[in-house]
Amino acid sequence: MFDQGLLAPGWAGSVAEELTGDAAVVRAMLDAEAALSRALAAVGLAPEAAAREVTEVCAELTVDVRALALAARSGGNPVIPLVKQLRAAVSEGSAEWVHRGTTSQDVLDTALMLVSARVLDSSVLAGLSVASTAAARLAREHRSTPMAGRTLSQHAVPTTFGVKVAGWLSGLADAGRRCGQVRRELPAQLGGAAGTLAALGTDGVAVADAFAAECGLAARPSPWHTVRTPVAELGAALALSAGACGKAALDVTVLAQTELGEVLGDAGGESSAMPQKRNPVTAALIVAAARQAPGEASALHLGLLAENERPSGAWHAEWQPWRTLLRVAGGAAEATGRLLTDLQPDVEAMAATAVDPSLLAERLSGVLRAELGTGAAAAVREAAFAGRLPELLAEHGIADPAGYLGSAPAFVDRVLATTPPNERLS
Amino acid sequence: MFDQGLLAPGWAGSVAEELTGDAAVVRAMLDAEAALSRALAAVGLAPEAAAREVTEVCAELTVDVRALALAARSGGNPVIPLVKQLRAAVSEGSAEWVHRGTTSQDVLDTALMLVSARVLDSSVLAGLSVASTAAARLAREHRSTPMAGRTLSQHAVPTTFGVKVAGWLSGLADAGRRCGQVRRELPAQLGGAAGTLAALGTDGVAVADAFAAECGLAARPSPWHTVRTPVAELGAALALSAGACGKAALDVTVLAQTELGEVLGDAGGESSAMPQKRNPVTAALIVAAARQAPGEASALHLGLLAENERPSGAWHAEWQPWRTLLRVAGGAAEATGRLLTDLQPDVEAMAATAVDPSLLAERLSGVLRAELGTGAAAAVREAAFAGRLPELLAEHGIADPAGYLGSAPAFVDRVLATTPPNERLS
Amino acid sequence: MFDQGLLAPGWAGSVAEELTGDAAVVRAMLDAEAALSRALAAVGLAPEAAAREVTEVCAELTVDVRALALAARSGGNPVIPLVKQLRAAVSEGSAEWVHRGTTSQDVLDTALMLVSARVLDSSVLAGLSVASTAAARLAREHRSTPMAGRTLSQHAVPTTFGVKVAGWLSGLADAGRRCGQVRRELPAQLGGAAGTLAALGTDGVAVADAFAAECGLAARPSPWHTVRTPVAELGAALALSAGACGKAALDVTVLAQTELGEVLGDAGGESSAMPQKRNPVTAALIVAAARQAPGEASALHLGLLAENERPSGAWHAEWQPWRTLLRVAGGAAEATGRLLTDLQPDVEAMAATAVDPSLLAERLSGVLRAELGTGAAAAVREAAFAGRLPELLAEHGIADPAGYLGSAPAFVDRVLATTPPNERLS
Amino acid sequence: MFDQGLLAPGWAGSVAEELTGDAAVVRAMLDAEAALSRALAAVGLAPEAAAREVTEVCAELTVDVRALALAARSGGNPVIPLVKQLRAAVSEGSAEWVHRGTTSQDVLDTALMLVSARVLDSSVLAGLSVASTAAARLAREHRSTPMAGRTLSQHAVPTTFGVKVAGWLSGLADAGRRCGQVRRELPAQLGGAAGTLAALGTDGVAVADAFAAECGLAARPSPWHTVRTPVAELGAALALSAGACGKAALDVTVLAQTELGEVLGDAGGESSAMPQKRNPVTAALIVAAARQAPGEASALHLGLLAENERPSGAWHAEWQPWRTLLRVAGGAAEATGRLLTDLQPDVEAMAATAVDPSLLAERLSGVLRAELGTGAAAAVREAAFAGRLPELLAEHGIADPAGYLGSAPAFVDRVLATTPPNERLS
Repeated sequence: MFDQGLLAPGWAGSVAEELTGDAAVVRAMLDAEAALSRALAAVGLAPEAAAREVTEVCAELTVDVRALALAARSGGNPVIPLVKQLRAAVSEGSAEWVHRGTTSQDVLDTALMLVSARVLDSSVLAGLSVASTAAARLAREHRSTPMAGRTLSQHAVPTTFGVKVAGWLSGLADAGRRCGQVRRELPAQLGGAAGTLAALGTDGVAVADAFAAECGLAARPSPWHTVRTPVAELGAALALSAGACGKAALDVTVLAQTELGEVLGDAGGESSAMPQKRNPVTAALIVAAARQAPGEASALHLGLLAENERPSGAWHAEWQPWRTLLRVAGGAAEATGRLLTDLQPDVEAMAATAVDPSLLAERLSGVLRAELGTGAAAAVREAAFAGRLPELLAEHGIADPAGYLGSAPAFVDRVLATTPPNERLS
Repeated sequence: MFDQGLLAPGWAGSVAEELTGDAAVVRAMLDAEAALSRALAAVGLAPEAAAREVTEVCAELTVDVRALALAARSGGNPVIPLVKQLRAAVSEGSAEWVHRGTTSQDVLDTALMLVSARVLDSSVLAGLSVASTAAARLAREHRSTPMAGRTLSQHAVPTTFGVKVAGWLSGLADAGRRCGQVRRELPAQLGGAAGTLAALGTDGVAVADAFAAECGLAARPSPWHTVRTPVAELGAALALSAGACGKAALDVTVLAQTELGEVLGDAGGESSAMPQKRNPVTAALIVAAARQAPGEASALHLGLLAENERPSGAWHAEWQPWRTLLRVAGGAAEATGRLLTDLQPDVEAMAATAVDPSLLAERLSGVLRAELGTGAAAAVREAAFAGRLPELLAEHGIADPAGYLGSAPAFVDRVLATTPPNERLS
Repeated sequence: MFDQGLLAPGWAGSVAEELTGDAAVVRAMLDAEAALSRALAAVGLAPEAAAREVTEVCAELTVDVRALALAARSGGNPVIPLVKQLRAAVSEGSAEWVHRGTTSQDVLDTALMLVSARVLDSSVLAGLSVASTAAARLAREHRSTPMAGRTLSQHAVPTTFGVKVAGWLSGLADAGRRCGQVRRELPAQLGGAAGTLAALGTDGVAVADAFAAECGLAARPSPWHTVRTPVAELGAALALSAGACGKAALDVTVLAQTELGEVLGDAGGESSAMPQKRNPVTAALIVAAARQAPGEASALHLGLLAENERPSGAWHAEWQPWRTLLRVAGGAAEATGRLLTDLQPDVEAMAATAVDPSLLAERLSGVLRAELGTGAAAAVREAAFAGRLPELLAEHGIADPAGYLGSAPAFVDRVLATTPPNERLS
Repeated sequence: MFDQGLLAPGWAGSVAEELTGDAAVVRAMLDAEAALSRALAAVGLAPEAAAREVTEVCAELTVDVRALALAARSGGNPVIPLVKQLRAAVSEGSAEWVHRGTTSQDVLDTALMLVSARVLDSSVLAGLSVASTAAARLAREHRSTPMAGRTLSQHAVPTTFGVKVAGWLSGLADAGRRCGQVRRELPAQLGGAAGTLAALGTDGVAVADAFAAECGLAARPSPWHTVRTPVAELGAALALSAGACGKAALDVTVLAQTELGEVLGDAGGESSAMPQKRNPVTAALIVAAARQAPGEASALHLGLLAENERPSGAWHAEWQPWRTLLRVAGGAAEATGRLLTDLQPDVEAMAATAVDPSLLAERLSGVLRAELGTGAAAAVREAAFAGRLPELLAEHGIADPAGYLGSAPAFVDRVLATTPPNERLS
């Protein structure tokens, strides 16, 4: 009855999967409860011994996840039954400090932020880093490798494989920067029943800050039960990352087309019916992630519309898109790391295509402008349809695509300069 | 590591969950493979004995779902490793008929359609039917029960609880009709490597039709590997159903507000911090489903953009939103059945609110028009601000909200008449 | 300050544009007001003369659209100021029958349905019909024209251009059928202040039905102010249509790639920089429509979540996505009619590509199975990598792609049979 | 035929509308062309005189927007015909420097970024600033004004109106910070035909940087024709802003409900049928914006999937959602400024509601815990159902909601401290 990754080849077996499964969420909820007990002690409300006991029990508690999931239905979230179990597992004296002054949403929001932090660190940012390092290597290596530039599916002017990859790199670096920023701002949540922490008397603020510190998360100035900036921004950052990966992968699927063959498909992209095929499967799965992410992110943007102190449905609607985005973006980042590390460009195939004379029509047009003025474009068009482009290009000594690369190599250098190795590695 | 419904109180434990888990999908893939073997036999290609053997093995095959999920990554889908296992499990003579002439997408598309059919039958349509029956009862019972009609959050004119519920019923009936239509059109998929069924020689069409018949699904005139109408329409129908349920549930959350109290929240809607609360949890979870569905449905509409004979990513991007929608819509329909069956309207609370004289301002305006012409509106406004509405209403003998229900009861009758009991039950 | 289609090359100058501009919406609002006056007369409430006068004035009223737009802000919709203007334009005796018993939402919902009906008739369905007719011709003509079948961007097995186009046709026909069904069900809206039509006494139902008849729209059993099935279903149908068009256009952009050249780009797809280019601009604009539609449709699915008798924001959020979808889908359908009517397939280019021996690997595999059993696949793979496929294919007399088309021509016939000419034309 | 804001009461007449109309986009395209000519001169390619002339002509050129829109269709964008017109309007010597070395996408992307910068400055950020200032005032003023805290639509514990508003403020400040960051990073685009600027020889990079400087936009390290980070991030920031506004407005619609009456609706929120109504129209229109934004933003996230050097459709699909989001978010920010500046809280109504004893059940529970231990919750529940809460509260001297505000005032202070006045003003 349970999901084991069958419909998710894009993230089955990934780090993101391991860090987001139900067990990982339960772990994070217990981490939050333990952190709360320590925060209460740090502020002087709870006895240190209670904090120690709660922390130890949380670390070792065995939870029947399925039972918890079923028990979650009546109250609408899994924290309520988890707290019951946790209270029963500690001594009577400590029980009163479990979940003290807080509400279910505090614990679940914080737990999902802990999960998000872990996925960003070990999956999304790690994957982007591997992908960026590989992209930087490819961009440097193929800084001046000519290939056909393509616009609206047509040959346009020559470009280089290096600058194409530098474009991927710039997008991956954008995603890394943004995900890193969002990561640092992921907040803990502590507001109590309706965001006033009234059950903690006058110590609410101090406990909230101590709680954030114990969680290793940021502290916001006030509870964000219905101020969902952190969730919306996380969703957008994850969609950005999935899209940056998807851009690289989409180009790979285009270049891997049989007729182009400028990069090779996966060694393992097998087909039972057609034994010789090398499907670009990894790239296809990354593209799939980038197609799925926008709809999930839109669900989190919608979550901003949350009424009152805690809402009737808006919050509950976030959980699954939130986790799905972590998986989709994490799986895509990890896969993009592999895709680019293993990518095999076929420089000869690129060169063979790049001799297409129509790629130099713009250049010829520029050269002829000196002779013909504004009539140059018409002359080139006519020559193109008459098949006389090669002749004209040769005549003017401009037939080599490598002679018309413009700023492509310079753009590669600029992108590399703005994404130095150390930034790419964290 | 695996999901057991922890973040899904809206569908954990539901029929939809059971019918959509990884094991259910594997089951449906095996059902499809078995149906294919029988179709090959029906057309005279495969020996009857092979079809029988394949069918039997499929019925009993034990599959390690997790191993399958991990093996699915290299080829990009779980059918490839499943077919390997299935071929190994049958006799050598039968093995050659397993998966004969088909492609992974045929089996997975068909399997997801089988899963969809089962969820529509036993969860979505069943839930809508229960919900509709309950709504019909409430609408009939409260056909003329006055309550405040509310527009833009303000009291407008009196309405009846019955016509409010009849509105819900009409939406649920729309969803049922549309889901029923889509259900009948859910097709099997059989196209082979690139939609020509070439490996079946001249028998392709006959096998495809026999396959659909064996699956109990519709036959389309040609393969739909990249003509994704059936998936997009299914997604839209499920989003419609989730929305129809969400409308009823949203109204319940409004009416259950402490200040209104015109319906009661869930008996089980407990809160650990506030012991007396009766949160309308079921309604909140249904609203959450309706907020989540549009983003998922948009991912399936996007799936229509699928290139060539089979695409690089567009297909893979469908699987998870497809299943998520089945769960979200199924869980919501089942929950709405319970919500409306158990709904406890508080007729006295409604009556107490319905005496608000401003609800009769429109009526007074109409009455005064005879006296004052176009000045009536201004007179009413002035009276309202001066607190003289009750007096004026009494003076004109129109103070009873029950006297200004217009066509509300008649609308109830019309809705009931267009959704006869038998239709509500299937 | 106003929009004149600058950012909308996909629908500027289209029929859809003309039928959806602000002036057309004002026209439809006046049509609705006129229809209401006639409905009131038909039921015997209003004098025939008043109905005639209101109808005549509505037909000729000059409205300053911008002034109306600005005046719409305080009440939140343009009906309120329009009604003021209309009342002032008729005689005093008729003025009291203008907008009688109704509410702004009645008029705007009905007007947008009238607009939708006109766009469906004259743009979406008309465009789909032209496109389908052209597709049917191409499918028939190229029923057996071999070309490379492509899956996951790789050559798979041979297919025919005809069956590829038949796939497009089947999607277009689906869209036409669904849009036609939705078109017939587009309803008028009449509910009054809060859906009870109380201001019409006991005549509400009769007036509502007469109103629908006068509008040429369907009558629902009760008002649908917050039962938004008709809007959600319209949105989904339009997204389906945009997607069906997008599928055909996406394939055209793939086939028009310089390296494939199997169809030609637009004659007018000019580029200032590269004079010889023939960009597939029409196809690109249709693809753009199909990428935009899902997000707009999701906004309409979200509209189902509308509270109470009339909502605070949910309704207002529909207007722009609703109109945008009409334009996007209408423009795409019209453009697809042109795209397919003018499409120039290059049969020789297709034939040249279709000789790729790897397209027959599956066939060879099937043939070798008789000799080698399960070792056939490995043998084919080995031969493919050794470059010996042509030799082996020749040896077995199976080197002609036209000999391995399977059911492609039969699928063409089936699709044509299920979309007979008369259906394609309306 | 053209749009004049009829269906857009949320942004008709707004600054955002004026800055995004077709004329404003044409203006921005001409600004970009003028900036390019100056950049070419700054680098020493074009004569200064040509740059001056082009700049002057661009400043004064009269453009027939509709003709441009229609001419845009064949090439797929409005830049091509605009350049023709511009070249014809300058002297022959200058004509050759118009649009030199660039491509349509450079000009349109840059123009839309200029438009975005203007809307962010004068509408979104300005509106957020006004709204934040008003919110800060309200939060400070009502720092300790008790009102009912509501969760899942039920009374929970007391809160203060100030801390509720401080929550709005924190969301508005988040949006301001993020929009400000995105604003500073809005880049110019200059890449030429396929992102190499080859037509500018070795001066491409220098021209690109000079171009960005002339535009007052940021320079990216390389062209971003298909690295759409800036568009996706802008979209997400605008959706965040619309959502932050929507949160405040949603709460206003809740509090303005007739039964609550804790804030007043719009003075101008008129209803023709019900003269006394004060609909919260402004709030409803802002909520509508927040419901519309997520779907539009998802279209921009999807734009990240753009193939090759310039894509077939992905780029074209961005224009309308991009502009719609600017309008929707800008209109919402401006309206929220008005909404909060004019907001009239009814402190007496809040106080009257806040005496509900069930708001103090949590407090009582805490107090009783000392007496009854874990049995406290049951005792409170029992007392609540027996109507004995007031008595018990009085008995324990804890009946005043103002005595149970917890950290609400402190949270107000923290939010105010992190959004100092100067930050709120820019």
